[in-house]
Amino acid sequence: MTRGRLITFEGGEGAGKTTQIKRLVDWLQRQGIDPLVTREPGGTAAAERIRALLLDSANAELSADAELLLVFAARADHLARCIEPALASGRWVLCDRFTDATYAYQGGGRGLDWSRIEELERFVQRGLQPDLTLLFDLSVASGLARARQRSTPDRFEAEDLAFFERVQAAYRQIAARAADRVCVIRADQAEESVAADVKACVAQRLLDRC
Amino acid sequence: MTRGRLITFEGGEGAGKTTQIKRLVDWLQRQGIDPLVTREPGGTAAAERIRALLLDSANAELSADAELLLVFAARADHLARCIEPALASGRWVLCDRFTDATYAYQGGGRGLDWSRIEELERFVQRGLQPDLTLLFDLSVASGLARARQRSTPDRFEAEDLAFFERVQAAYRQIAARAADRVCVIRADQAEESVAADVKACVAQRLLDRC
Repeated sequence: MTRGRLITFEGGEGAGKTTQIKRLVDWLQRQGIDPLVTREPGGTAAAERIRALLLDSANAELSADAELLLVFAARADHLARCIEPALASGRWVLCDRFTDATYAYQGGGRGLDWSRIEELERFVQRGLQPDLTLLFDLSVASGLARARQRSTPDRFEAEDLAFFERVQAAYRQIAARAADRVCVIRADQAEESVAADVKACVAQRLLDRC
Repeated sequence: MTRGRLITFEGGEGAGKTTQIKRLVDWLQRQGIDPLVTREPGGTAAAERIRALLLDSANAELSADAELLLVFAARADHLARCIEPALASGRWVLCDRFTDATYAYQGGGRGLDWSRIEELERFVQRGLQPDLTLLFDLSVASGLARARQRSTPDRFEAEDLAFFERVQAAYRQIAARAADRVCVIRADQAEESVAADVKACVAQRLLDRC
């Protein structure tokens, strides 16, 4: 059995990840690949409960270390009971946010040392990395304007502009460091053009087609 | 300001910790010490929500790593927002269960490597250890009989006898390794005698009185 591929979708608020994941699923299905779609934090019953706790504005005072450990607790359950079994059975997995988001939000946004994030990454992932990461890059102002039209802000969305500028800077730093894994997608284009870039990137990096 | 002291209470189910904590509070107050009483997992709003998740039988399938990370997420919040500020302000803290319980339940009970627990202990506690740990030692059968009279079993209480035998063996191993910190209290005595042993231990180890 060939192991499946793990594709992660990253980017700030309102970058259009959800729409683009749906479009990629349709396209992959036409290529004969039926991927599992999941998200972080979340993806299992327990991890979704952890997500609720993380996003709940009532926990505004949650300590930074506790937040980081909760993110990785959710990830550990998600990996052990959803992602790893799917990959082992040959299924492709599309995951809306993964560890890069931890570096961006808890590292860039909250200012936690990257070395502390790396420690938990090693602890939980034991070397596992996405086969491909699509980073949807958009100006912070445009992303927030889109995201805030949608819903009441959660504990992260309620942060200030400087927070999201730090998140974006961290994402761009990751893309520069891990250029072999991370493909930057310009998310300020029309939906069709973004989808075309996503397909081109997946085809070239994972399907050996241009 | 003299830093407060951290006393932790450990032991299997039904060992009488709750009763003995109350009695020790009364006695300490008569000595002019007004301790903060707290518990793990829990002690802050977020940590209590994590506790609910850990004890909920609906999460029977929670992966072992996720359980361990959740325990330490709760502990990180508890330390940062409750225990550390109290100790720094000179207050004594009595905590019903702490990291020894993680070695006993997740290590002994679930069979997780102690080295993995040590890794998270270092990450979260950065060297902090209780000043004194009172380990209430009782035969597993007696403890379970007491605990099961009380309430519907939670996710841990629903485990089998062999699980609790491993928990007890781990607790005894900790007491042997950390004899300078851990005081073993025979919990199969009458409540008054247990209380007398607790007082003697606290007086000798923390108040320099016999």
